[in-house]
Amino acid sequence: MGDFQVIAKEFVKFYYETFDGNRAALSNLYRDHSMLTFETDSFLGTAGILEKLTNLPFQQIQHRTDTVDPQPGSEDGTSIVVLVTGALMVEGSDRPMSFTQTFQLKKDATNWYVFNDIFRIVYPAA
Amino acid sequence: MGDFQVIAKEFVKFYYETFDGNRAALSNLYRDHSMLTFETDSFLGTAGILEKLTNLPFQQIQHRTDTVDPQPGSEDGTSIVVLVTGALMVEGSDRPMSFTQTFQLKKDATNWYVFNDIFRIVYPAA
Repeated sequence: MGDFQVIAKEFVKFYYETFDGNRAALSNLYRDHSMLTFETDSFLGTAGILEKLTNLPFQQIQHRTDTVDPQPGSEDGTSIVVLVTGALMVEGSDRPMSFTQTFQLKKDATNWYVFNDIFRIVYPAA
Repeated sequence: MGDFQVIAKEFVKFYYETFDGNRAALSNLYRDHSMLTFETDSFLGTAGILEKLTNLPFQQIQHRTDTVDPQPGSEDGTSIVVLVTGALMVEGSDRPMSFTQTFQLKKDATNWYVFNDIFRIVYPAA
């Protein structure tokens, strides 16, 4: 696997483990110019993104990732685009829901962080 | 809507109309450094991408887009990341399938083109 594949898969594993275990700790993954689109709502910057994520109307959630497909997002090695599909289950529900999520990861001097984050529940087609 | 939203929505409309009407004409949207991940297969460059798309094992397909969520993919206005969800139906089937697709559009001197293209069918979660 290329480096971008290793980085993307490690990021995705860490992201959902953190989301499911301690959502507030996701703040380390965002920057002040990061963007989140969560269903129909959009947020700019770590503070706004974390306020949304930590106030979602459930205490417990479990993500399962089914597919993780990364590509280099630029030719200079400082960007990775990754499309995730999977299922999630929130407390009190016995029905998993399909979701899809796209990240663009960018590299600053020392770390990879989330520049773009777009999340959608996928409802059955028919 | 910001420019990126208008551009993304027009691109998505054009992309699926072209895909459903004349797949070979999609070649104008890719460049030699463009990437396509279609389910588990990956392709680099217009020729390889078009060979894959034009040889998919169906003659007729119809896409329906349910959500189109774009974000600026860079701070200099030369990139747009967009996550699409929807349903597609291929000839001989009366069962639509959910899909998700991520594009990163980039702008060269005069045109927007597809740098990243990642496509996945989304199967029901349970």
